This record gives sequence, structure tokens and C-alpha cells, in this order.
Amino acid sequence: MALPPLPDLILDPIVRLALSEDIGRAGDITTDLTVDIDSTLQAQIVSRQPGRLAGLDVALYTLRLVDPSVDFRFLKKDGDDLLANDCIAILTGKTRSILLAERVMLNFIGHLSGIATLTAAYVERVSHTNAKILCTRKTTPGLRALEKRAVVCGGGCSHRFGLDDAILIKDNHIAACGSVTEALNRAKSGVGHLQKIEIEVDTIEQLEEALNCQPDVIMLDNMSTTNLNKAVAIINKKCISEASGGINFETVSAIAESGVDYIAVGALTHSAKNLDFGLDIGAN
Amino acid sequence: MALPPLPDLILDPIVRLALSEDIGRAGDITTDLTVDIDSTLQAQIVSRQPGRLAGLDVALYTLRLVDPSVDFRFLKKDGDDLLANDCIAILTGKTRSILLAERVMLNFIGHLSGIATLTAAYVERVSHTNAKILCTRKTTPGLRALEKRAVVCGGGCSHRFGLDDAILIKDNHIAACGSVTEALNRAKSGVGHLQKIEIEVDTIEQLEEALNCQPDVIMLDNMSTTNLNKAVAIINKKCISEASGGINFETVSAIAESGVDYIAVGALTHSAKNLDFGLDIGAN
Amino acid sequence: MALPPLPDLILDPIVRLALSEDIGRAGDITTDLTVDIDSTLQAQIVSRQPGRLAGLDVALYTLRLVDPSVDFRFLKKDGDDLLANDCIAILTGKTRSILLAERVMLNFIGHLSGIATLTAAYVERVSHTNAKILCTRKTTPGLRALEKRAVVCGGGCSHRFGLDDAILIKDNHIAACGSVTEALNRAKSGVGHLQKIEIEVDTIEQLEEALNCQPDVIMLDNMSTTNLNKAVAIINKKCISEASGGINFETVSAIAESGVDYIAVGALTHSAKNLDFGLDIGAN
Amino acid sequence: MALPPLPDLILDPIVRLALSEDIGRAGDITTDLTVDIDSTLQAQIVSRQPGRLAGLDVALYTLRLVDPSVDFRFLKKDGDDLLANDCIAILTGKTRSILLAERVMLNFIGHLSGIATLTAAYVERVSHTNAKILCTRKTTPGLRALEKRAVVCGGGCSHRFGLDDAILIKDNHIAACGSVTEALNRAKSGVGHLQKIEIEVDTIEQLEEALNCQPDVIMLDNMSTTNLNKAVAIINKKCISEASGGINFETVSAIAESGVDYIAVGALTHSAKNLDFGLDIGAN
Amino acid sequence: MALPPLPDLILDPIVRLALSEDIGRAGDITTDLTVDIDSTLQAQIVSRQPGRLAGLDVALYTLRLVDPSVDFRFLKKDGDDLLANDCIAILTGKTRSILLAERVMLNFIGHLSGIATLTAAYVERVSHTNAKILCTRKTTPGLRALEKRAVVCGGGCSHRFGLDDAILIKDNHIAACGSVTEALNRAKSGVGHLQKIEIEVDTIEQLEEALNCQPDVIMLDNMSTTNLNKAVAIINKKCISEASGGINFETVSAIAESGVDYIAVGALTHSAKNLDFGLDIGAN
Amino acid sequence: MALPPLPDLILDPIVRLALSEDIGRAGDITTDLTVDIDSTLQAQIVSRQPGRLAGLDVALYTLRLVDPSVDFRFLKKDGDDLLANDCIAILTGKTRSILLAERVMLNFIGHLSGIATLTAAYVERVSHTNAKILCTRKTTPGLRALEKRAVVCGGGCSHRFGLDDAILIKDNHIAACGSVTEALNRAKSGVGHLQKIEIEVDTIEQLEEALNCQPDVIMLDNMSTTNLNKAVAIINKKCISEASGGINFETVSAIAESGVDYIAVGALTHSAKNLDFGLDIGAN
Repeated sequence: MALPPLPDLILDPIVRLALSEDIGRAGDITTDLTVDIDSTLQAQIVSRQPGRLAGLDVALYTLRLVDPSVDFRFLKKDGDDLLANDCIAILTGKTRSILLAERVMLNFIGHLSGIATLTAAYVERVSHTNAKILCTRKTTPGLRALEKRAVVCGGGCSHRFGLDDAILIKDNHIAACGSVTEALNRAKSGVGHLQKIEIEVDTIEQLEEALNCQPDVIMLDNMSTTNLNKAVAIINKKCISEASGGINFETVSAIAESGVDYIAVGALTHSAKNLDFGLDIGAN
Repeated sequence: MALPPLPDLILDPIVRLALSEDIGRAGDITTDLTVDIDSTLQAQIVSRQPGRLAGLDVALYTLRLVDPSVDFRFLKKDGDDLLANDCIAILTGKTRSILLAERVMLNFIGHLSGIATLTAAYVERVSHTNAKILCTRKTTPGLRALEKRAVVCGGGCSHRFGLDDAILIKDNHIAACGSVTEALNRAKSGVGHLQKIEIEVDTIEQLEEALNCQPDVIMLDNMSTTNLNKAVAIINKKCISEASGGINFETVSAIAESGVDYIAVGALTHSAKNLDFGLDIGAN
Repeated sequence: MALPPLPDLILDPIVRLALSEDIGRAGDITTDLTVDIDSTLQAQIVSRQPGRLAGLDVALYTLRLVDPSVDFRFLKKDGDDLLANDCIAILTGKTRSILLAERVMLNFIGHLSGIATLTAAYVERVSHTNAKILCTRKTTPGLRALEKRAVVCGGGCSHRFGLDDAILIKDNHIAACGSVTEALNRAKSGVGHLQKIEIEVDTIEQLEEALNCQPDVIMLDNMSTTNLNKAVAIINKKCISEASGGINFETVSAIAESGVDYIAVGALTHSAKNLDFGLDIGAN
Repeated sequence: MALPPLPDLILDPIVRLALSEDIGRAGDITTDLTVDIDSTLQAQIVSRQPGRLAGLDVALYTLRLVDPSVDFRFLKKDGDDLLANDCIAILTGKTRSILLAERVMLNFIGHLSGIATLTAAYVERVSHTNAKILCTRKTTPGLRALEKRAVVCGGGCSHRFGLDDAILIKDNHIAACGSVTEALNRAKSGVGHLQKIEIEVDTIEQLEEALNCQPDVIMLDNMSTTNLNKAVAIINKKCISEASGGINFETVSAIAESGVDYIAVGALTHSAKNLDFGLDIGAN
Repeated sequence: MALPPLPDLILDPIVRLALSEDIGRAGDITTDLTVDIDSTLQAQIVSRQPGRLAGLDVALYTLRLVDPSVDFRFLKKDGDDLLANDCIAILTGKTRSILLAERVMLNFIGHLSGIATLTAAYVERVSHTNAKILCTRKTTPGLRALEKRAVVCGGGCSHRFGLDDAILIKDNHIAACGSVTEALNRAKSGVGHLQKIEIEVDTIEQLEEALNCQPDVIMLDNMSTTNLNKAVAIINKKCISEASGGINFETVSAIAESGVDYIAVGALTHSAKNLDFGLDIGAN
Repeated sequence: MALPPLPDLILDPIVRLALSEDIGRAGDITTDLTVDIDSTLQAQIVSRQPGRLAGLDVALYTLRLVDPSVDFRFLKKDGDDLLANDCIAILTGKTRSILLAERVMLNFIGHLSGIATLTAAYVERVSHTNAKILCTRKTTPGLRALEKRAVVCGGGCSHRFGLDDAILIKDNHIAACGSVTEALNRAKSGVGHLQKIEIEVDTIEQLEEALNCQPDVIMLDNMSTTNLNKAVAIINKKCISEASGGINFETVSAIAESGVDYIAVGALTHSAKNLDFGLDIGAN
């Protein structure tokens, strides 16, 4: 099924912020002085590099906030693979409106497609296993909903969205409770019947203690490959397993081969490079 | 003079957005279940890699929005060089408040320090010349003010802030006007006495036409090193020169050696990797 | 562990809206004309009926937005049982500030304590069983986070928060997919590893089909007591069971005796009566 | 004349808040996984109980914020009496949009129709007299404008909107001034020529003192029926009279028979039960 | 009784807007480059002209939003008469904060004191009569609450605040209803018991028709002095009378001598000149 | 080239604020009671005085926020000269929508046209010279973008927009640095390559010191005509010159004759009188 766009109400605050910081208090003074108010044009959003597309829904919403009369026709959709020089969309309308929206549209598409492209590379890297690639909460401030969707465009999976939609017990929580068991017991006492519980463990001992308490997911944090293999064997599908902690493009394959179910990669959202797009303009 | 923090009113909307997307509608449910409401602690923000610091002002504002009673003591300041394992700041206060703010604070510092660190590397790379490194409008949506300040923390310079605070005539504007000369004449007719005019040229012919109209800055876009050297010689300090267009860490040095005054690098803000920080907690 | 207050950032928009609609564009014109600007007083928030307390955190935030210099001392805390004429909190400060905030504070406490009180009655009603009382998404617009916490103050449990934090397959989704099995298969293909899946069934046939697909929770919707008993027996703890649909104070006990795990009651949030509180003032 | 809808600008903040808390940060994940993006349907908003309709304007605005392309055809209008199973409106458009908006629309209609229905019952109860039923400022936080209009849909009348649009002198104001006379004199010295003055009195003595000062309205607070009858006789149409204080469905008739002009009932807005509506869906 | 400040919640949106448009996206770049971050100073807000003070509460709120640590000591209060060179307030704190807030503070005080000063002149002009000076809804967009309070600082009175807090029947409403009588009857059928009704009449005939319907206030619009005198005699204190329509400083005295109760002057808020204030700085 | 309208995103916050303060919490209660909901009309915005038009873009946006279905046809455009009784625009649509928007539309047009008209008078006054008329940052809070555009409609020029888009060194900055030279050196060390530097000087000595440092613009503040003439001669086109400080309609001509390039007049935005417009209605 095609990947749905995010509801406008979710996009609205970040797109307004992005447009405001570019338009400022006087608008596009260069275009106002050099382009006739009635001028129209046709322009194409074009990829300058191969990659995976994401953010077209945000670009469309950006343009609609600037000028709903500009026509925006899609030739690609989010989640598509791109070659260099693919035409993504054709825009037809007032020149001033298109130039005003150009940079913000391209910044969104470039940033989000960069994330989708990096995710797709990680997914490919572990495709000989059953491991799935996860993003984390290490997202760019203000862009989490958009970036998580970009990860899905890249073939990855989302983690919990924030602090409020699943329980994730980390080292500091365990320390505060005194033990893995106590932390899991407290969590179970208050968890909702539609919420899951995950716990982070650093050692085989912690893992065994955790497993006794039957959490939904166990995060194996910063383990050596040896320990990771051992841990996956101990878990033995009794719950979902997730590897985490400083995993990179070099190490991800070996980690996946441990048989772990999920691999969390912070770099997907905090260290992806922009995918390059341009706006090519032809007179209408 | 020490780099000033941004005014709170500029930080406010993006920090609220970032906190909202993490806190959601129910807050930190894990911490609420596992950490006592009266518990306090002392924690340190620590660098996990060497780099250049930026974003400490944003982290402080984030924490103050969450809980103004937490004490935040700086050991480093924005613009400082960091080694791995440097202690940046010490936080003392309610455990729940610090854990609630942790991820958002680290996301800001990591993202902005990543930009400062990459900028510092570019600046170092051209330090045998007089060229200055500039950022562009290819910033992460919503974060422009913060990212431009991070570039300054890295030793780089800001460009115009948005579409409204300087005139920058690009190829589409020239096309709309029919010629470089006409575009510059129109711009001059309406420019404010405290605004500057920059024009982008792709060829030596365009450069010569532009130079006759005396703009404040000429952007030499996507020129070969040969053409760039020729262009800088033709400009001959009659106006400010700026190189732009797909410049990367491999090419920046040769470009700087052309004698150009400024070099614009989009990658500073759209493709920097996160600098890794952690929150190390000790019982209080 | 004591019930934590909601983070200020969650309370902020609804409290501002509530104050704005009361203060309007000119403030408290009666008080401004009749009460001296320097006058101070001590006032008590007092219960006029027995019940369960909720919303004290919201009342405190309301007062702090109006005037942070007013002292607010708690004598009761959210989740406490109240008799009539219990003193909940003592406020000391500027008369004008306290009178300005009075109605909005009391409206929040009265509304939320009404929900907590009704929830506590339902919880008591099923206390001879293991069934837990759940709220639904039938909440008062704008107040969901506050009302869900009030349900917890009353001893009830929260359901999913909104459309985005768990999967709940209802009749329309089943109809769109053609079958219970297809709906559950599609959901499983895209569900996050920290999200649960619930499905609503109306008949024993649907239940058996659903059970084969191993959802996390099955909602037994609008079933007769006979069918409900049968359904709980069939489920036999293979997954969590939830009864739903027009359950009221008369029917809830029999439903709980079926052995179902959870009972969802929309009335908790959409039809609770206000619990009466007053502000009793004594000269300072 | 038909009851006008509230201006969109008044509805906007509370409808956005209501949608945001339901849509969250990822939208309707169940529908996105189970319903095709191009699917359309026709659905009916149907009453499940008899009552008085209110809130259709808010439901319409909610749907328009979600997806302005969905057609919304009214069969009933606010203020109409409903039987069980009346069709209120027919919606035709994208399945995903209608399912996304469903709960918020129904929450608004159910809550506001509940208020209109309760108001209509009170109005009917006193229909053998000339007394009019008033709401108070004891409204649900954030919903005051909507609830006051729902009271009017039920045949009741609005009171002052907030603290700023009329003068209402209560016991605390009288205490601060030292006497009823002094309070009324201070109020008259500053009241606008388009604002009215109301004063609350508890005793016949206060009433007589107040009457000498010629306020526009006198509120007879918490009086026994005997005292109320006496008070109405004393006022003798010299100003408007209003009864107030803990009036309920059992006592309202006797109070109306005193001849008082207006009766204020807080329960209309703080203790009305939801009126049940459903969304019945048929394939298109 | 001293004129109360407006509640912060009313000031907040316009002060934020005013600061945002001045601070922009980078703050006070001049001060950041030329004034040391630790520098403090003492500064005085000083009048450069005689007049009536208004807006000090707004200036204080502005400064607190910029930097709550700056001390703000009042030497004058709103409503005071000023000579040239009076010291209004003394500010002590960080130089950067004071310079950042300076222009916005002075713009508010200058604008609002200009209105208070003009109002005071009109009030003085009619002081030999009982007429009171009113402002209108012809206020500067966004500043109505502040400007109406400035009028009161000048000795004038407020009118209705907006379209929603009193009924004012104008020529277009009368035309829509067919007659003065019908318009007043419709208004009376729906008016709240705490709302007043005013009607605008242009002729003696309309006046007589209106008077029969007993409105609270009659506005005598654009009448000649002869007609105005006649109208006031006809009204003969049966209701409140208000003169309106193009009244200026030359004509106001004669109008007041007609015996009319109120005179509405749009110029108070739409055409007042700024009162000049400066910030005089002395090293601390 | 025709003066472009401001982008909607710039107009949006101030127009919403202006509508909110007029519509309040219940809308136009008079019109709701007296005008039929289906009534339509045609109305004209008409000038009551001669002057220069500005603000029509804001009026249009106001009406679109209230009711996008009302047709708005322009007969004049911003920057046009008006006679009394010119028809500016014709509105056709729902009576209630037009009456609801009327006052806010007229307040914007009247205020902004007042500024344009005063500016045009100043421009005319110096038309025998080359001097250009500038506005300042002494604008009405919240309206700066709109007022600066109104100045341009009047033939004047904008200054820097706020504290962040150009460097303007004033007396306090010079004092903080110790000298004009030091202040200019510090500014130059941090100025962006697209930002200009202006410095304010009070004396010929300061001017000469400043000129040595080659700023872009020198502001000659509060100089006598003699000194101003001398200063312009000294500058001798080496940089741009600007006169400032208490300049009024009587003195501006002599100042322009000094040969200064720009003249800053605070009165344009802080002391312009409203230009009178009305809404003339004819039945449709």
C-alpha cells in the first residue's frame, strides 16, 4: 500500500517556521524588484544524485501555504528510487510564488531524502538477514514526525515516537530502582494495556534477569559481537530483541548476522547527508 | 569578544516544538513509573568525540522551559574546542526534570556542534589563504538562526539571513530581466541604503557585464578553477568576490587559493554529522 | 508512588485558552473597580461534596500564569479521597490575582475531580473481580491529557492516547479489508515493534478468526452477557480481553464478572458530573 | 431567525487543539494500514438518542480542517429537536479523511448537544412561567463560546461572557468595599455607558440596600423559596431579578414560580451528559 | 483608585509580535559587536514633551520578556501628567538587554501616551459641561486593549470593546430590518440581560421612533448643532445620549454644550501624535 | 513595476490579532440579530478625503480570513493617489461577512493610507532636491512590515528593518567602545559581507573620525543647518549621508537643500493621521 502523507496539521507548525525564517519581514526583495508580478512559469524539481525520495508531501504543503494557485504535478512519489536527473514534480504558476517557496521546498526534500537514502543503504546492507533497521529519538529538533516517515520511505522502521508512547527502561531508571527486576515490576504495575515495555541491558547477567520478567522487547546495548550472539541465543525468540549503541555502516552487517530482530541506528536521522535536488526553470 | 547567545524570543518556538514532539501528551511515562518524584541528581554533559562546541545556549533554554529550578553550570562555552570526554556542563536538580530534557538538549548540542566542527575543519583547510568560509540558506528547516550561529562558532561567516535582508540576483532573475545589466539596474532602483546587492555569474562575460554595474558582491558560481582564477583577477578587489556551487572538502583549498574573498559551502548546514555527547549521571 | 503532575508544556495551551476566554480583552473589571490594588488575602479551596480529587496541578499552573507571586500550599493531593468541606489548598497573595484566577481554577478542579470521582465509583463497583476500568477517546475536546490523568486519579486506566500510538482495528477497517484476518495481517505488516494491535469483534465467529491471528488485545463490542462469558472462555488468557459498548453503572458489575480483563467506559469522560468546590476567603 | 454559526476565528483554536490531541505525531496509523488511500465513502452522522442538536457548525469546521474536499450536507440544523436514529448530516469523500475526523466531530456534537438537551429540559420545566434559564461561567475550560451557544440552541440565555463584559459584584467585592452601597458606588463611577451592573445579595437587608442604588440586575443568591418570593415582591420590576445558587432540576420549577426573571443554572454546562451520536458508514 | 495594569495574558501577544519584528532572526547585531556581554548600566526613561503618561505597564512587560533580571523602578505612573524632561522610570541591569528592549518600550509608551495626551486635551475642552469623551472601535489593529486603557488614562471613557459585548444598531442594520422599530424589536428579542442596546439615528424622525422603543443609548450621528440641541431636548434623559461623527477639536466644545451625555471621537485612537520619550543612559 | 503585496505569512499574525480583538468570543451580535443569514449585498470602499492609498492588500487578506467567498474587486491599487469619494474596491457577498470585516478592513486602510499620505507630502516637499525620505524603527508595535510598505507607497524608502539586518552604531555604542574608531573597528570585525555599517555622529569632529574608517552610511544626528551643510561638504560623496533627529514638515526642506542623501522622519510612522474611508452599501 502506498505510503500515506502526514496529516496537514502535523506538518503545519514546522513548515510555517521554515517559511517564516526565509521570508522574514519583507519577503523576497530580489524577486519583487526583478520579476514582473504577472509572470508565470513552469519549473521542475529534479534530482541531482541517485537516492531514495522522501518529503514530497512536505514540499507540496509548503507551496500551498505560499500560493495555493500554483499547480503541483507529481512524477515520482515518496519511497521511489531516483536516478540523477529524474524529474520529481512539475510546478506551474506564478513565478514569484515558486521562487519564494523554492529554497524551503528543496531544503525539506533534500534533508528528508538524505535520510531515506541512508536508511535504504543500511536496509540493503542487512538484506541477507531478517534484521530490521530502526531509527531512534536522535532526530533533528522540530522534524521528528517528518524524519520518522523518511526512515519508513527508506525501508526502515520507526521506534517509539517520544517519551510518552511506550516504556523504555534505561540504565538510569534501573539505577534509580536498584535492580532490573524492580524496574520492570514498577513499569508493569503502571503500563497501559496497549503499551509495550522495553528494557536496555548491557550484560548477559542483566539480560537473564530481564528475561525472567517477560518484557516485550530487550535492547542489547553496546555489546560485543560475541556477547550479542550469546544474548540472541539466550533470548531465543522469547521476546523481541534489539541491538543498539554506536552501530555504523561498517558494523551493521555483523550485528544483523547475530539474528537480532531489530537494529537501532541513530545516524539515520542525526548524520545523514543531504540529497541534492534543484529547481530547473523553463519559460511557460 | 565572547559569542553572544541568541535572544530567548528567537529560540522559543523551535525549542517548544522540539520538546513537544518528545514529551507528547503524557510526558515521560518510564521515568514517572521508575524514579521517585523527589529524587535529585547531578549529571554532566560530556563530549564523546573531539570537536567544536555550539548550542549550549539552546540546551540551557530547553532545560529552563522544562524546569527552571535545575541548576546549570557551564564548564565550556560555545566556540570552544573539545576533546573526547570533556565535561561541558554540570546539571543539578530533580532527576525527573533532567531525564525529561536530556534527549532534546543532546539533540540540539549534537546537531549544532556537528555544524561547528565541520565549519572549523573547512576554516582550517583554507587557513593559508585569506578566504572566509560562508554558510548558505541550505539550512535545516526551523533551525536557521541556530545553525548560522553554529557556523560562527566554527569560525565561519553568515550569509544573508533570508530572502528579505539583502539582494541576491540569481540566474532566474537575470533570465526574467533579459540581461545582467537590466537586473542590476532594477535592483539598484529599489534597494535600501542599508542593503547590499550581490549577483551570481556563471561566465566571464557575465562577470564583466556585472562589474560594470558596480554590485557590492559578485558570486562566481560553479566555475572551473581556471575560470575562477581569471575571474578573481578581473574583479581585482573592485568588489567582494564569492565562490559558490558544489564546493566540498576536497576542492575548497584550491578554490581558496584563487584569492577569492568568500567561499559558500552548503554542506556546512545540510550535511554535517552529529557530534556525539552523552549525559553521565552520578547520584547526588 | 505519588501520581506525577503533567509537564507544564502539556498544560500550557489549554490553560491559556481557558484564562483568555474568561479574562477577555479588559480583565476583571468588577474587581478592578472594587478591590484595592494592594489588597492581599488568604483563601481556601474547599470541597462542597465528597469525592476524589484531580486537577490540583492544573489549578496551580493556572494561578502561576496569572500571578507567580501568589503562594499556593497543598493540603491534599491528586488522587486523595475528599469529604465535604475538606480544605484542599491555601492561597495567599494579591486579592486581585486570586479573584481573577478563581473561576478557571475551580472549573478545572471541579471538572477533573468529577471524572475522578465517577471513575472511583466504577472501580469500586467491580472491585470483587480482577477487571480494570478504562477510559476511551470520548473525551472533552482539548482536555484529553488532563482527563486521562483524572481517570488514573480515580483508579482507572488509560487506553491508547490517540489515533497514532496503538493500532485499533474497528468494524470499518475490517469492512475495508474484507475480513478480520486480512485486517490483522495488514496491521501486522506495518506495526512498530513497540506498538500493540487491538481488534474489535462483535461476534463469536469474528472472535475465533481474530484469535487465530494473535492480536495483543481483543475488544468484545456490545456483546450480551451470555456471549461475553463465552468469549472470555474462548480467549482463555491467550490475549488481553476488553469489553466495550454502552456499558453503564448498572451493567458494569455483571460484565466484570465475565472475567474480562478490561472494561472501557466512555461515560467516565463524556458524562461525569462536576464535583463542587468553592473558594472561601478570609481577610489576611 | 436561524441561529448563526460562530465565526471560524472563534472555533479555530479549540478545534485545532482537539484534532492535535487525537492525531498526535503520526496520524491514524490503523486506517493508514488498512484502508486504501483512494477509497471514498458516504457516511451519516446519526443520533442514538432523542435530544436537542448543537455543535454541527463545529463538526463542519473540524472536517474542513482535516480535508476541505469532503462534502458535508446538513439534514438537521443546530437547535432542532432530534429523535433517536435521525440522520443529521451526510458526508461524502475520502474514507481516510472521514475516519480521521470522526471521533473529534462526534465528541463536539455529543458534548454540545448534551448541553442543549439539558437546557431544553430546564426550559420546558419552567415553561408555565416567564422565567428564563441562564448559563453561568462554570463552563468547560476552552469551550465557553461553544457551550454558551449550545445553551442558546437549547432555548436558554447567555450570561456575561467573562470577567470583562459586565460588572457583577459578589460577596468578596462587597466585603472589600465594606458595604453594598459603597461597592455599587465604586462600580458606577467606572462603568462604561454600554455596560450593565449586577450585584449578588444573600439577604433581604442587602437586597433593600442594593435596590436603593439602582443596579441593572440583582442576583438573589441561595435564597429559600420564602425569601425568594419576598425578594421578587420587593424588587417589583424596578430592576431585573436573577435567582442563583445550587438550583437543580427538582427545585427549578418552584423557583420560577416566584416570578423571578432569570434563573442561573451552572449544571447546564458543567454537568450535562453527552448525547450519543454515531457515524454510520455505507460503501460509496 | 489607581488605574490597574492590564493582565499579562492580554499584553502578551502584541508585545511578542512587537519584539519579534525588531529582534528578527539574529538579535541586536550592533550591540553584540560593540558592547561587552557583562556590561551593566542604569538608564532613565525621560519625557521630551509635556503630556499624559500611558503604557508604562506595557514597557515593563516588554522588558521582562527580554530579560527579567533588569530592575525597573517607576517614578511616575500611568495617568500622571508629565512635564518635559520628567524621569518616568529607572532601569538597572545588563546593557545589552536594555538596548535590545529600548525601541519597543519607547514605541509603546510614546504611542499610548500620545493617545492619553490627546484624550486629556479633549476632556479639558469640554470640562465646563457634563459631557464625557469616548473612544471608538477605530483603533490601531492589534492594540485595542492598550489604546482603550490609554484613553482612560487621559480621562476618557471606553465604548463597547468589540462586536460582541453590546448591541449597536447602525444604518445598515436598520436598512436590513426595514425600520428603526423592527431593528430594535429584533435586538430586544435576543439581547442578553447584561447587555445594553444602542442605536444610531441620523434624523429627528428616527430619534423619535427609536425613543419609543426604549433603547439604553441613542447615538446622534453627524447631526448639525441645531439638530443635536433639539435631539438632546427630545431625549430629555429618558436614555443615554451620545454624539458621534467627524467630531474634532474645534467642534467638540459646541457639541458638549448641547447637553449630550457622551461624545465619541475616533481621532483619539486613529490620529493621535506620538508623545516623545527618550532613554538617557548613565554609566553604572 | 507595481508594488508587490506582502506575503500572506507576514500579514497573518497581525490580521488575526486585529480580527480577534473585534470579533471577541461571540461575534457580531448586532448583525446576527438584525440581518438575515442568507442576505447578500454589494458594498464599496470609498475615500472620504484625498490622499495616497496603502493597505488594500491587508484589507483583502482580512476579508479572506473572515469569508473567502466574498468577491473583492479592486478599482485602485496601493500607491495610487486618491480624491475624496473615489471608489477603491467593490465587495460582493454575504452581508454578515462584509459587516463583520468592515471595521478591521477600514482601520488597516485608514491607518496605512494615513502614513502613505504623510510620506507623499514629505517627498513632495523635498522634490526640488535629490534627498530621499526614510522611515525609522519608530513604528506602531506589531505593524512594522505593513507601515514600511506604506512608506514606500508614499514614495519614501525603508531603513533597516530591525536590529538584526544592518549595523547602526549609536551614541551608546560609541560610549561603550570609548571612541568612534574603536566602535567602527569592532563592527567591521564581525559584519557580514552582505551587511552595511552606519554610524551616528553628532559633531563635525566625530564625523571626521568616522569618515576615516569608511562606513557605508553616516547619520548626521540633530545637527544645525550650518553644521549639516558643513558635514555634507566634508563627506563629499565618500559615503552615503543621512540626516536624522526631530525633523518635521517645516524643517525638512532646508535639510534637504544641504545636499544630504537621505532624511529620516520618525513622524511618518508614529504621528500620521488616519485617512478617512467608509463602506458604502447598496442592496444587491
